[in-house]
Amino acid sequence: MWGVALTVHTDYLRFNTESRQEIVRITDKVKTIVERSRVQDGTVLVSAMHITAGVFVNDWESGLIKDFEVWLEKLAPAGLPYKHHQTGEDNADAHLKRTIMGHQVIVPITAGRLDLGPWEQLFYAEFDGQREKRVVVKVMGV
Amino acid sequence: MWGVALTVHTDYLRFNTESRQEIVRITDKVKTIVERSRVQDGTVLVSAMHITAGVFVNDWESGLIKDFEVWLEKLAPAGLPYKHHQTGEDNADAHLKRTIMGHQVIVPITAGRLDLGPWEQLFYAEFDGQREKRVVVKVMGV
Amino acid sequence: MWGVALTVHTDYLRFNTESRQEIVRITDKVKTIVERSRVQDGTVLVSAMHITAGVFVNDWESGLIKDFEVWLEKLAPAGLPYKHHQTGEDNADAHLKRTIMGHQVIVPITAGRLDLGPWEQLFYAEFDGQREKRVVVKVMGV
Repeated sequence: MWGVALTVHTDYLRFNTESRQEIVRITDKVKTIVERSRVQDGTVLVSAMHITAGVFVNDWESGLIKDFEVWLEKLAPAGLPYKHHQTGEDNADAHLKRTIMGHQVIVPITAGRLDLGPWEQLFYAEFDGQREKRVVVKVMGV
Repeated sequence: MWGVALTVHTDYLRFNTESRQEIVRITDKVKTIVERSRVQDGTVLVSAMHITAGVFVNDWESGLIKDFEVWLEKLAPAGLPYKHHQTGEDNADAHLKRTIMGHQVIVPITAGRLDLGPWEQLFYAEFDGQREKRVVVKVMGV
Repeated sequence: MWGVALTVHTDYLRFNTESRQEIVRITDKVKTIVERSRVQDGTVLVSAMHITAGVFVNDWESGLIKDFEVWLEKLAPAGLPYKHHQTGEDNADAHLKRTIMGHQVIVPITAGRLDLGPWEQLFYAEFDGQREKRVVVKVMGV
């Protein structure tokens, strides 16, 4: 589309996970916000607002999600003598894990729909939960 | 630029790599799409639509590309007893490798050109190829 | 906001770090550019233009920043016999480290301000400094 005026639409998702670490599928919630925006062609930014959580795109398969958790524990283990813990915190590993997974994604919107490949699903990755956290969702387009 | 109407232009790149794992330079293909969009000032999203492939920006130097491959095999080895493989798949490592590399980039467009630094090049990273895959390219700007 | 014309505003940050490796907080510099753009609702792309530097969002806590440095050295050590070094370079690890940290972020702008969570701060991550480098900052919105 050429020469059409811009729509910007903002919303927030809220999470308060039962476990400290949890991976939550959010594709449908993002889809609902995009539909509400009426944007037909553009992008939607989905970005964790907390520094121990991430947002990523991958496969909705429980085995793979478990593989991600095991892998992250290997690359960024909990319980090491992190300097960050001298402040009274105990979650340095959560900051590292979210860095590997990424804290935001941009999803293209085409013909009013999330322009995702056949297996792409959006996930919220909590690494230090059990308290309220937010994800900002910003739709931009025409 | 202030107060100009928005252009959104979408295209797709297709890949069917000969090897299972392959890193393909795509700077020129993205440049061509940006030129076709006539956008002078804005951004272009370049995003893998498959969950075992990535898109990243780095150096176009064959030794470094080999270093990336060796490094990814160390951080996310193939052939481990991943839970994902209980579904019949054998590519869990590809999901992990693409996560490290990232699955999308946004390139700024300034004065009608990709606003890249002197050594920045765009790459498609295939980790489970030998079949058709797509990358969505979405240009937005004025 | 619906149906308003687009503003695109571009600026560049310059860095020349004293140490080879350095993590520099840039939240305020990005905020200043966003204010100058007069955009009230949109996004700002903050993207390293050099392939041995990154941009990321995390906590402004010196212990954690040190943890990041130690962790990156473990995941992507300097001094290995990287193939990239056969070209005369000695910085392959810097390319890998920046890949883990990410080379760009998109920050949402809402009501004229960076729409960040309580602890989110923007950082420039230099892994091969002591020479001039740039970060492109592209504001888009209404």
